[in-house]
Amino acid sequence: MNNLSVKEIKDREDAHTPGEYYQKLPAVIESLMKSWKSGRHGDQEELVSMPSHESVVRIIHRARNILFPGYFVQIGLDPVSMGYYLGQETTALFEDLSGQIIMSIRHGREESAQTEAGLGKRGYEIALKFVRGLPGVKALLAADIQATLDGDPAAKSDDEIIFSYPGLFAITVYRLAHILWIQDVPLLPRIMTEYAHGQTGIDIHPGARIGESLCIDHGTGVVVGETTEIGDRVRIYQGVTLGALSLPRDAGPLFKNKKRHPTIEDDVTIYSNTTILGGDTVIGARSVIGGNIWVTESVPPDTKVLLKRPELVYKENGGKTTPA
Amino acid sequence: MNNLSVKEIKDREDAHTPGEYYQKLPAVIESLMKSWKSGRHGDQEELVSMPSHESVVRIIHRARNILFPGYFVQIGLDPVSMGYYLGQETTALFEDLSGQIIMSIRHGREESAQTEAGLGKRGYEIALKFVRGLPGVKALLAADIQATLDGDPAAKSDDEIIFSYPGLFAITVYRLAHILWIQDVPLLPRIMTEYAHGQTGIDIHPGARIGESLCIDHGTGVVVGETTEIGDRVRIYQGVTLGALSLPRDAGPLFKNKKRHPTIEDDVTIYSNTTILGGDTVIGARSVIGGNIWVTESVPPDTKVLLKRPELVYKENGGKTTPA
Amino acid sequence: MNNLSVKEIKDREDAHTPGEYYQKLPAVIESLMKSWKSGRHGDQEELVSMPSHESVVRIIHRARNILFPGYFVQIGLDPVSMGYYLGQETTALFEDLSGQIIMSIRHGREESAQTEAGLGKRGYEIALKFVRGLPGVKALLAADIQATLDGDPAAKSDDEIIFSYPGLFAITVYRLAHILWIQDVPLLPRIMTEYAHGQTGIDIHPGARIGESLCIDHGTGVVVGETTEIGDRVRIYQGVTLGALSLPRDAGPLFKNKKRHPTIEDDVTIYSNTTILGGDTVIGARSVIGGNIWVTESVPPDTKVLLKRPELVYKENGGKTTPA
Repeated sequence: MNNLSVKEIKDREDAHTPGEYYQKLPAVIESLMKSWKSGRHGDQEELVSMPSHESVVRIIHRARNILFPGYFVQIGLDPVSMGYYLGQETTALFEDLSGQIIMSIRHGREESAQTEAGLGKRGYEIALKFVRGLPGVKALLAADIQATLDGDPAAKSDDEIIFSYPGLFAITVYRLAHILWIQDVPLLPRIMTEYAHGQTGIDIHPGARIGESLCIDHGTGVVVGETTEIGDRVRIYQGVTLGALSLPRDAGPLFKNKKRHPTIEDDVTIYSNTTILGGDTVIGARSVIGGNIWVTESVPPDTKVLLKRPELVYKENGGKTTPA
Repeated sequence: MNNLSVKEIKDREDAHTPGEYYQKLPAVIESLMKSWKSGRHGDQEELVSMPSHESVVRIIHRARNILFPGYFVQIGLDPVSMGYYLGQETTALFEDLSGQIIMSIRHGREESAQTEAGLGKRGYEIALKFVRGLPGVKALLAADIQATLDGDPAAKSDDEIIFSYPGLFAITVYRLAHILWIQDVPLLPRIMTEYAHGQTGIDIHPGARIGESLCIDHGTGVVVGETTEIGDRVRIYQGVTLGALSLPRDAGPLFKNKKRHPTIEDDVTIYSNTTILGGDTVIGARSVIGGNIWVTESVPPDTKVLLKRPELVYKENGGKTTPA
Repeated sequence: MNNLSVKEIKDREDAHTPGEYYQKLPAVIESLMKSWKSGRHGDQEELVSMPSHESVVRIIHRARNILFPGYFVQIGLDPVSMGYYLGQETTALFEDLSGQIIMSIRHGREESAQTEAGLGKRGYEIALKFVRGLPGVKALLAADIQATLDGDPAAKSDDEIIFSYPGLFAITVYRLAHILWIQDVPLLPRIMTEYAHGQTGIDIHPGARIGESLCIDHGTGVVVGETTEIGDRVRIYQGVTLGALSLPRDAGPLFKNKKRHPTIEDDVTIYSNTTILGGDTVIGARSVIGGNIWVTESVPPDTKVLLKRPELVYKENGGKTTPA
């Protein structure tokens, strides 16, 4: 170790004028081209496309604008304007999404045995299920909003939660991504939830199974792993990890598709910065897990788990000494 | 629990061509329209507008560009260019903000008893207070920058802090949002601070009361609750929560507007990942709270609080076994 | 303390019409202009420019598009399209970056003793080193991707990691910023890594020295300080801090450029929310540090360090009482 991670080119350039520097670029571009050709997608002989991150981000925002019209982009809120708006946005979403699904299936799979026609039909079919699922998602989100309003004294109205709560945004994107996940769409669901993770600090895997009326408050640092199951009316605070027990090095592939993350039953509350690990760990209904706790075993229903207060040391602070 | 959160539509579609799929969209759009009409804002008969998230984000960036011209958008830094720039941006900010304030008051309040004329006047008045407050905010931020420069050995210059420190961005947005908060503007202050939360991982409620020369270092995961009070020259590290004690389920509404979050007096330092909870908890002046501590009781002035080192277990790592 | 941080202007305005409010803006703009003139960059007499945040963000995205063409912006993936794309983007990156380097050196340094001609040459030279370094960065990132694929059972393909893993984005930006850091470019490296921090919650200082095959999983809350050294094949989880021991107040300047952050040797794994502090702290090769641990002393090679499980308190939850 301790080598610089990027080796410095020691020799001084013999270039002096801007033109002489620009003349050195073609050689750089050629080596980038060579590196691309030897990589994952470099064997293409004709024009194809991959799904793109910017398209997926556009899909998320379009779906959110359909679910909550007028909140994020200024539009008229009378029925005529709204009719045009929802019509236009839903059609554009369907078009965008079906295209991205087709490209994802074509690229994300080892066995791309499907014909182009079959692929096209599959893309349209899943995109239709997605837009048809939107009213159902909207109803689920209404319950999530109500759960937040009930649980957080700082929440003043449902409008405030829709406009500004990162927990609601993360749950919205999860619920949308999960529709694509259960249809076996590769790549897109994870790009969606990781976009929300970037925006909110809340990392919910699209494969998690989550019931109704979830409230995630503050939320920064929350992790909900791929095989987690969460019941109804669960409340989770910032920094909570629902994760996997650690694995031996390089054992990753062996544990794919196994239940590795906990089960949280109905009406459970989990306070901030608590970590719950393991596929066999079940937190029983109506239990309350205090903050800052590390749980790797099941907890029965109707139980309160608290950390026995660790001993604190109080010293007079001279003001000059270094605090440890 | 354990139901899929979105019910899968089992039947295969009878559509085959793209056109046949598109013909299924109007029914979807109609059900979205119905769902909108039965919702929070669906009773509008004529064209009205809500405040919009994208407008609020534009307002934040405009205010920041006025406070720190030339840092985030490339402009000429000579006095003539600067005069035009500040004039144009401040006018645009005033226009944007007064409009958003009017829409927020109209929408955010139960009792929208005010006349449209009174509402307009109120919007202009508050927006004027906001732009008049900018030089004062700039002076406060200069002290926050100096506090960071004094406290962080990695900080090389005030420019570096303005350009890149998430702590400064979160404090900037808080100080701006707080002006609107004390004028009782609904929705906007929280949209502003939650935007900063999304960008930085630092969640400062606009209702918190914060003195001069605050330094938040790294900052991801910091939570400062609605009724927190923070004195002068306080230093806070990543993952620190200044929060409320837990509440019985659904007691949220009962605790609105009560002091639920701690008081941090002058010259206190709070190290990373420490949690301080409760409206009666006071951390006395000049005290130092170590990292990774859970505090629910007051600490006298001039005190150092450390965690008694928890016992660690050292084992030889065979390299093959599963670490717990 | 306890003063409102922004003093409220008490008097009611004498304005009534919109026009009367707008007439109050010039006085505000004048005071902003005055405040700018008395500040850091207000002594300019002629047109100059500073580096700008928006330009640096554009540089990051351009470099990422060159490293992973087709993933983030939709383009044709055949060799002809790709040749044009890489040529155009690399030239634009070179142009943008050389300009920002020149402006950064001019502004970020106390001693701007250099001639404009010498500054221009320095800008082109460093920008050329940067673009020449891209194939090497691409090779390093391929090893980082493989490390993630080996370690995370939820990772399905390298495409998924490139598209969606925040850990990879943070490492990409760090490896790019580090090229500029070792060339002593002021401001830009830190703006780059703090942009990634904002996007991912992962805060890697550009001055850290990091070996090959790093895997950062989930990542929110990770902090890697300026003088940290990390070996090859290291694995880090969310919430891990590699930080400095606390300093006496205002001692920041004294500790600049000293080794203040730990050394992590080859093949070490550090689980979630663990904090490792101090410039003399060395975590020996192949050691495993469990989750939620606070380490301020060195750990020998081949050691497993676990927290002795703290005592938990289980109570029956009446459902009516307040959980502590």
